[in-house]
Amino acid sequence: MPSTIIDSSIFGDIFSTAAMRAVWSDENRTQKYLDIEAALARVQGRLGIIPQEAADEIVKHCTIAEIDMRKLKSQTERIGYPVLGVVSQLNALCRDKLGEYCHWGATTQDITDTATVLQIREALELIDDDLTAISAALADLARRYRDTPMVARSNLQQAVPITFGFKMAELLSAVERHRERLTQLKPRVLMGEFGGAAGTLASIQRGAMETQAGLMQELGLRQPLIAWHTIRDTVAEVGCFLGLVGGTLGKLSMDVKLMMQTEVGEVYEPFAPGRGSSSTMPQKRNPISSCYIHAAISMVRQHVAALLDAMVADHERSTGPWEIEWIALPEAFSLTSGALKQARSILSGLEVDAQRMREVLDMTHGLVVSEAVMMGLGSYLGREYAHDIVYDICREAIAQKRPLLDLLAENEEITGHLSRAELAKLCDPANYLGQSGVMVDRVLESVRAK
Amino acid sequence: MPSTIIDSSIFGDIFSTAAMRAVWSDENRTQKYLDIEAALARVQGRLGIIPQEAADEIVKHCTIAEIDMRKLKSQTERIGYPVLGVVSQLNALCRDKLGEYCHWGATTQDITDTATVLQIREALELIDDDLTAISAALADLARRYRDTPMVARSNLQQAVPITFGFKMAELLSAVERHRERLTQLKPRVLMGEFGGAAGTLASIQRGAMETQAGLMQELGLRQPLIAWHTIRDTVAEVGCFLGLVGGTLGKLSMDVKLMMQTEVGEVYEPFAPGRGSSSTMPQKRNPISSCYIHAAISMVRQHVAALLDAMVADHERSTGPWEIEWIALPEAFSLTSGALKQARSILSGLEVDAQRMREVLDMTHGLVVSEAVMMGLGSYLGREYAHDIVYDICREAIAQKRPLLDLLAENEEITGHLSRAELAKLCDPANYLGQSGVMVDRVLESVRAK
Amino acid sequence: MPSTIIDSSIFGDIFSTAAMRAVWSDENRTQKYLDIEAALARVQGRLGIIPQEAADEIVKHCTIAEIDMRKLKSQTERIGYPVLGVVSQLNALCRDKLGEYCHWGATTQDITDTATVLQIREALELIDDDLTAISAALADLARRYRDTPMVARSNLQQAVPITFGFKMAELLSAVERHRERLTQLKPRVLMGEFGGAAGTLASIQRGAMETQAGLMQELGLRQPLIAWHTIRDTVAEVGCFLGLVGGTLGKLSMDVKLMMQTEVGEVYEPFAPGRGSSSTMPQKRNPISSCYIHAAISMVRQHVAALLDAMVADHERSTGPWEIEWIALPEAFSLTSGALKQARSILSGLEVDAQRMREVLDMTHGLVVSEAVMMGLGSYLGREYAHDIVYDICREAIAQKRPLLDLLAENEEITGHLSRAELAKLCDPANYLGQSGVMVDRVLESVRAK
Amino acid sequence: MPSTIIDSSIFGDIFSTAAMRAVWSDENRTQKYLDIEAALARVQGRLGIIPQEAADEIVKHCTIAEIDMRKLKSQTERIGYPVLGVVSQLNALCRDKLGEYCHWGATTQDITDTATVLQIREALELIDDDLTAISAALADLARRYRDTPMVARSNLQQAVPITFGFKMAELLSAVERHRERLTQLKPRVLMGEFGGAAGTLASIQRGAMETQAGLMQELGLRQPLIAWHTIRDTVAEVGCFLGLVGGTLGKLSMDVKLMMQTEVGEVYEPFAPGRGSSSTMPQKRNPISSCYIHAAISMVRQHVAALLDAMVADHERSTGPWEIEWIALPEAFSLTSGALKQARSILSGLEVDAQRMREVLDMTHGLVVSEAVMMGLGSYLGREYAHDIVYDICREAIAQKRPLLDLLAENEEITGHLSRAELAKLCDPANYLGQSGVMVDRVLESVRAK
Repeated sequence: MPSTIIDSSIFGDIFSTAAMRAVWSDENRTQKYLDIEAALARVQGRLGIIPQEAADEIVKHCTIAEIDMRKLKSQTERIGYPVLGVVSQLNALCRDKLGEYCHWGATTQDITDTATVLQIREALELIDDDLTAISAALADLARRYRDTPMVARSNLQQAVPITFGFKMAELLSAVERHRERLTQLKPRVLMGEFGGAAGTLASIQRGAMETQAGLMQELGLRQPLIAWHTIRDTVAEVGCFLGLVGGTLGKLSMDVKLMMQTEVGEVYEPFAPGRGSSSTMPQKRNPISSCYIHAAISMVRQHVAALLDAMVADHERSTGPWEIEWIALPEAFSLTSGALKQARSILSGLEVDAQRMREVLDMTHGLVVSEAVMMGLGSYLGREYAHDIVYDICREAIAQKRPLLDLLAENEEITGHLSRAELAKLCDPANYLGQSGVMVDRVLESVRAK
Repeated sequence: MPSTIIDSSIFGDIFSTAAMRAVWSDENRTQKYLDIEAALARVQGRLGIIPQEAADEIVKHCTIAEIDMRKLKSQTERIGYPVLGVVSQLNALCRDKLGEYCHWGATTQDITDTATVLQIREALELIDDDLTAISAALADLARRYRDTPMVARSNLQQAVPITFGFKMAELLSAVERHRERLTQLKPRVLMGEFGGAAGTLASIQRGAMETQAGLMQELGLRQPLIAWHTIRDTVAEVGCFLGLVGGTLGKLSMDVKLMMQTEVGEVYEPFAPGRGSSSTMPQKRNPISSCYIHAAISMVRQHVAALLDAMVADHERSTGPWEIEWIALPEAFSLTSGALKQARSILSGLEVDAQRMREVLDMTHGLVVSEAVMMGLGSYLGREYAHDIVYDICREAIAQKRPLLDLLAENEEITGHLSRAELAKLCDPANYLGQSGVMVDRVLESVRAK
Repeated sequence: MPSTIIDSSIFGDIFSTAAMRAVWSDENRTQKYLDIEAALARVQGRLGIIPQEAADEIVKHCTIAEIDMRKLKSQTERIGYPVLGVVSQLNALCRDKLGEYCHWGATTQDITDTATVLQIREALELIDDDLTAISAALADLARRYRDTPMVARSNLQQAVPITFGFKMAELLSAVERHRERLTQLKPRVLMGEFGGAAGTLASIQRGAMETQAGLMQELGLRQPLIAWHTIRDTVAEVGCFLGLVGGTLGKLSMDVKLMMQTEVGEVYEPFAPGRGSSSTMPQKRNPISSCYIHAAISMVRQHVAALLDAMVADHERSTGPWEIEWIALPEAFSLTSGALKQARSILSGLEVDAQRMREVLDMTHGLVVSEAVMMGLGSYLGREYAHDIVYDICREAIAQKRPLLDLLAENEEITGHLSRAELAKLCDPANYLGQSGVMVDRVLESVRAK
Repeated sequence: MPSTIIDSSIFGDIFSTAAMRAVWSDENRTQKYLDIEAALARVQGRLGIIPQEAADEIVKHCTIAEIDMRKLKSQTERIGYPVLGVVSQLNALCRDKLGEYCHWGATTQDITDTATVLQIREALELIDDDLTAISAALADLARRYRDTPMVARSNLQQAVPITFGFKMAELLSAVERHRERLTQLKPRVLMGEFGGAAGTLASIQRGAMETQAGLMQELGLRQPLIAWHTIRDTVAEVGCFLGLVGGTLGKLSMDVKLMMQTEVGEVYEPFAPGRGSSSTMPQKRNPISSCYIHAAISMVRQHVAALLDAMVADHERSTGPWEIEWIALPEAFSLTSGALKQARSILSGLEVDAQRMREVLDMTHGLVVSEAVMMGLGSYLGREYAHDIVYDICREAIAQKRPLLDLLAENEEITGHLSRAELAKLCDPANYLGQSGVMVDRVLESVRAK
């Protein structure tokens, strides 16, 4: 009977994904504990720190199937942390007290932190896949609509023309930066923890550093320079990364929501029967995926603050701050994965109404090209004078609700220089796209370069 | 396979409570939908808006047991919201198409919001119970230790004496204010929602306001003056309340953590075998409950920000902000309930070491009463001169690591006025408790007055 | 050379107000210290705790004009807190060492906290004034546009008709709740602090409680039951209140922004020459005040989390958490005052284009009344059948881009029951406003009742 | 009359630094606008896009001294943004209408964003300097106290020995990662903006890309691939970086606060006369700098959430989200600079009491080495049996308040294997430091490697 939206049997696959929840599940976390205990036994067996026979026996039982999860719950509630419960169960599973050699030299937090890092690695793989797919989808849209004019909006006011491809390429540039960030943070973050009670490995009398190095090699993680039980910048950094990814998804969802407005209608989330529709209002086509993205990432940015809070850890093993991570990290990943999934869904089937985009461009009867006309007339009338005359005509066009072109063509000062046909060309938004194509190409080129 | 700490099969009952999770469970939420549909049918049957036969048939099927939750999941994923799925299943359960009269005039959000309010009511009952229990436990501690001296700490420096009862009474004063806040917010917050598509009840041609009034009476909720689909101050207010309660629990946990330090040892969380202990460090007695409280309420304060964010809703039914509440509200309640449970556990069995408190008071050999000595000598030497002389002697006592009393008794200017016995009295922390008892009584009196 | 937006010589009066900044200025805060020291001297003189002559001399010098602020800066940097610096300057200003009787029995935080409460009182007065003005402006708009139809939007999709007055009344209902909250929190929050080093008033040997009572009476504040140096729920509650007010302003600004979109154009922020306009895009009319509101309140909700954080105070005088309030509280008030000012400006001169609202209602050629038509035909065709037939016709209307009325009038099943004139009536949004007027009246009535 | 703590004439230099405030001052920001306009004029003059004469005249006046700041305030309040006001003043300053060529092809946000990036560059230089200094101070402490034993604390309980150098080296490892992050983010973040109204550079008919490239070269910034007016990941990333740095400073301040407790007394913030002291409690030595750090960075982490919020920008120029940055970014930098300054102050003069550290280690009469004893006896008695016997003796030692060594030496099972002298060796914390020295060296080595 889950109570959170993430684990909800109704909403879970909307706000998260099964794959990401599996990463942060009790089962996977516990299996990771076992994986680490197994790796530790293997390394210490190899180094002769524990008997090989013990190592073999321990490794044999390091599987979640042998763990009694109900018992683990009560052990955890009693002790306060689950690792000792797992170790004690593992111990009991091994024959001839060989289990006593498990967890040798480790402390609870060594196992917990390293498990978290292994979970982060799996989770980042999922995020990476989504970012790659979103990058490809955005690149495809940028390419396809490279030259499809639509209006740019500044302060929610129609401004000047851009292309839809340009809009997508802007997002793409951010997604590419996120992928770069991910590449850069992985070596810092995918670092294991193994230090014993206070991080000094004091309880391992010989082979301490070799154990640490070997364990990390077994697990494919970086060996830490020093313990980080209460030095949590790498975990918080992962949170920051998710927050940044979320911000970009939030921008995407905001634009889709706005473009899907009844009064705008330029793009639509992919159609699915019944999806986002109303039983009594057939005209409605709700931006459902965008809603979910908006909500999920709004929560994630607060998780970022919580994870930064968790950095203020006391002494060598913190008293509360650490547990903030237990709450915030799985949720931040789960909600981000939900938002990424919804974003993939939007981008993979986005309906783009190029004709409606053109209609919207024409909605103000040419005012969105007033800048173009000012610039165009500038060469004949002087920039400032051109500005003033066009500005006045625009205000007239607004007042009379008549096309700008008509009023321009009625003005003798202007027609002395340009014919109606020439003016019409100036008034065509498709002729005022500037470097949008060039910039789209620059972004696409940067993707290809990877 | 839950992935959140709240729903975790391992951690769930540490960071939350079964009772609170039940309130926010898929089952309870869905049952609330059905309760509201049933209440609506009853009212509209009574008012003759729908046939009584239909009302009876609908009411008969408004039970979670008849709902196919797997089907509801897929309906929700298709439509984006669960209410229509419930209505459609309910419809199908009724004979002779009588189910078509269910949900009459309602919109999805009417049902969802009212269900949320019913859940909030249940959840606030749980919170209220916990606050009442915590109030009683604090009152008991304040009374029992009304006159037990301990040191007050300012900036984590020993300052002057207080009593442990005084410390508890300070917390109690905040808890009492929280209870007052709860009483004040309930009438605002426990308000139902029923307005139809845009809140105007337009689809109910007659008896609209009567339906709304009757429905709210059935549910025991306040009738709203106007729709609040996108006016979310009451929901956010609940979040703020939880944040404030959390802050007080955080202060409690902070003090317990600090008093449990090895170097301090004044109080201990209740002992339970294995609880918060280490297998290799027998001297450890971890403040486990305090850790959990610290983490839980650190997350809740971020939920508050998220719930305030959700207030920035667009038009008549918001596009994303509303869903923030779906995520944040159940979690805020669940984590708060976990923190309250841990706080109850701490307070109900807190071990108070009055003797150690006294030892700590004496740790600085009398410096914590330097203010008392200054004041006491002031009448003889003049306040300023007394200050200077005592201040100098204190610095001397620190340097020589000798008792303040000894140095005072060696000073002839002082002994000209006061004997060693009289000085000893001045140096007794138990004689410098000021109005602490009076203030404890004032707080206890305010509780009794309720 | 200010660096914050609030104190900026350029932006200060946009994001804040001079009156609110004055409340939180160094001068006002310092004057409050002096006011409290003066009140304390008066009370203690009257009670005979200090010589009346000293009291008179102290009171005489309790004015900011006599304080050397540069010196106070260096004193504060040396000591860490400003109060002792003020006391030492005050001391030096008094003749014959009479100044030694000032600050008698007080601790730094007594003065600082009480000053903060006095500032909060002044600040809440400003907020109250703004809320009153906003309430009046909203009531006026609700009344004037009680029957002015516009489209309601759900998920940014046109849904069914409401009135603009209804929209304003919804906001008004929240503002009225804020005023109620303010009334309720004042008695809790406007409570002074006076307890000495640890809150026990131990250094005042006689007349301690009388001094406390008298001081609070002098200052017009409530006497605390017990010290609250580290019990900060009342300060955080003020933050929560500001966050809630901000949420409502954010909702207002969101709707204004959306209604001002070029494609919508239903309302406009008051016109001022040059305001929110572009030099090259004459069609633009930027929702500048709404922008500022959005930004300011987005920051304030984070201040709320910070103020909740500040509640986690250690022992009797906190080590860092308290100082969070110093940062967050003045800013939260300043930004809220800026947002309130912008909201007042919007509401006092809002341009409402009722004709455009009607055009927007007609934009979908009648689809926004499809629910009305379904309901209207339900009595003749059966509700379900009516739903299906109208739903199909609506989809046809969308496909053919023809008015719903025309298609309805071509359907023989329908025209068998209703004439085109009768259908036209059903299709008129003004006939499908439900209880919007009734609800507006209910809200207005609730305001009048105060 | 500043109202924020940052700009306060009393607190400003405590919570911030003059250098950082100067970066974000009205004057510097406005000068940056002028620098960019000058650079643009130079480039466009060189490219022949504007007359060289105009470029020369414009450049001549691009100095803050010629700007009327009062006028700029009223222009900003009228228009909503300051850039046009600056341009209009600049225009008026130029002879012969040559000023009309300034701001050619630019939009307000081009100038504002690029100015912000130039400010970020200056601000990051200051942060970089502080991080470098803190790295050096930590390295020095790590080196000096590499072998100075102190107790490690887990859950605020004394656990096992570490060295003070180890504690410092842990922090150092995080600081080094921050420096790495800074190096990695600079190329992403130090990117200029120049795109015109919608980012397409449409108003520059020829030489658009050349202008952009030339301008960025002039300013020493990276040329963007595409406009980022509403793609704000780079700005939010800077915020995240500050949040991460703050987290590490928070950890430092937490540990210093705890070590400075009266009951602990292991380290002290540098002494300054009067600093953090009390007039009546001479024993107090307040961790003032740590307080300030705690408060400042608690606010900054909420700024991070606000900056992530600002990423949810609408269309091509956002309506409110952008302005969030105006508030949050200068404050986040200012408070971080204040925290860094306090941290530098702490670290540069930290008083380390190695003798007291040793006393604290001995406080539990040997219990902190129980793990060492278990391990040491393990080879003789078997690990498990050794554990059980030592654990029992430890509990006895706690109960009897006697030294562990004494009880060990009384146990015949133990003395059968080890003499009292050998047991004393096992019980010496200095012999149970594990790899702490090795790890300190690894961290120091990593610093040297840069």
